[in-house]
Amino acid sequence: MADWSPAQYLKFADERTRPARDLLAQVPLSSPAVVYDLGCGPGNSTALLVERFPQARVTGIDNSPAMLEQARKACPGASFALADLARWQPDDAPDLLFSNATFQWVPHHLEVVARLAAELKPGGAMAIQMPDNLAEPSHRLMAEAAEEGPWRLKLSQASAAREPLPAASAYYARLKPLFARLDIWHTIYNHPLNGTRGIVEWVKSTGLRPYLDPLAPEEDQAFLADYERRLGGAYPADADGTVLLRFPRLFIVGLR
Amino acid sequence: MADWSPAQYLKFADERTRPARDLLAQVPLSSPAVVYDLGCGPGNSTALLVERFPQARVTGIDNSPAMLEQARKACPGASFALADLARWQPDDAPDLLFSNATFQWVPHHLEVVARLAAELKPGGAMAIQMPDNLAEPSHRLMAEAAEEGPWRLKLSQASAAREPLPAASAYYARLKPLFARLDIWHTIYNHPLNGTRGIVEWVKSTGLRPYLDPLAPEEDQAFLADYERRLGGAYPADADGTVLLRFPRLFIVGLR
Repeated sequence: MADWSPAQYLKFADERTRPARDLLAQVPLSSPAVVYDLGCGPGNSTALLVERFPQARVTGIDNSPAMLEQARKACPGASFALADLARWQPDDAPDLLFSNATFQWVPHHLEVVARLAAELKPGGAMAIQMPDNLAEPSHRLMAEAAEEGPWRLKLSQASAAREPLPAASAYYARLKPLFARLDIWHTIYNHPLNGTRGIVEWVKSTGLRPYLDPLAPEEDQAFLADYERRLGGAYPADADGTVLLRFPRLFIVGLR
Repeated sequence: MADWSPAQYLKFADERTRPARDLLAQVPLSSPAVVYDLGCGPGNSTALLVERFPQARVTGIDNSPAMLEQARKACPGASFALADLARWQPDDAPDLLFSNATFQWVPHHLEVVARLAAELKPGGAMAIQMPDNLAEPSHRLMAEAAEEGPWRLKLSQASAAREPLPAASAYYARLKPLFARLDIWHTIYNHPLNGTRGIVEWVKSTGLRPYLDPLAPEEDQAFLADYERRLGGAYPADADGTVLLRFPRLFIVGLR
């Protein structure tokens, strides 16, 4: 049989980090000195940056002390700092600003992205990935379950936690003057998951958070059951119970 | 300034080979012995395969003698053979079947793909990319121009040269039993081009061919002018005349 590359195989298996790897693969730098990971979370993306650019000074930025604590343990090769991206300024002019699945949570993020692009060194790069899935059943049905249940008032703000992303052409128009080259694309992943329960598990730690956080423990079980029932109609399972979660993401790579 | 990687930069600049590189990047093999490039055309994708797998025996297959002649010159590290994919059988069990922008032209290609998947060595991989853009204005307007002009009868078969691709879920359902792992995704590229003329140039050697081939020389100029006029309404140019060509492509990577 053909020999497998264990590293590549692991990557193939790990669908969760695929978007961050796809983003990093399009960064056209060989040895940046100053790298920031904006919205580093528990440090998974930061670890990818340290692996790809071992000589770089990599700093992860996040607004969650708990996430930063995890990230420091998971990724000792990097530094970390607490900050809100809406107001954050880099200490040193960056060669690379990298951001995986974060800016969708930042209000008016297109202006924040434009402001940060101007901080890059000449020849530096910006690389951003954001879920663009609010129109997918997985996310429309969260909003529907919130509006139609006894938790309606508690969850009245949940859907507003994220605004739909502007069109690719809007990013292009706003950012093009700031970069020498600019590449914008969507990738629509299809994640095979174990039934509707698999979808609930997938979105629980991300998209569902604004819906679950305001609820009491017994309420959030009822909300999840209602949400999962709705998913059944939109994600038919095949013979062995697998459903495909369609997941569009927007990617932006600019070279200054 | 940050130092650039010349190779990476060239890649970034070369939007035409980006889909083939994106496809190859997801192939989880390190040193396959027997590699076929199905629909190799002038050998651009074959050259990528030889570069990535220098130890492999790489064979390009195409149904165009003219393309194969070009490919032989462009890519001396590979072998080439004339064949129609609908009936082609590999001489040796392949470690990798690679196909960039070809199967959309093969009638009933999902069955052909399924047949060829069964030829792979255990542990072997299949990697396929196809444009999925028949619903885009760039392609709908070709069909519209064909139907509404004096060339209507001559072009009555042109739109039938390619059928719309099945949904990702249909590929998944048909191919899943044949692979240990199967990954299917779309990427929607946005190509900044020089006005509607840039779009015409982009599709001239590919999607437009079934429309141009049946026409006499003076007719094809008139057809192109009509088509370009229609594009103007669908692709607004920005201040410096740039239009964004949205271009969805389907990717399939299976590991046997």
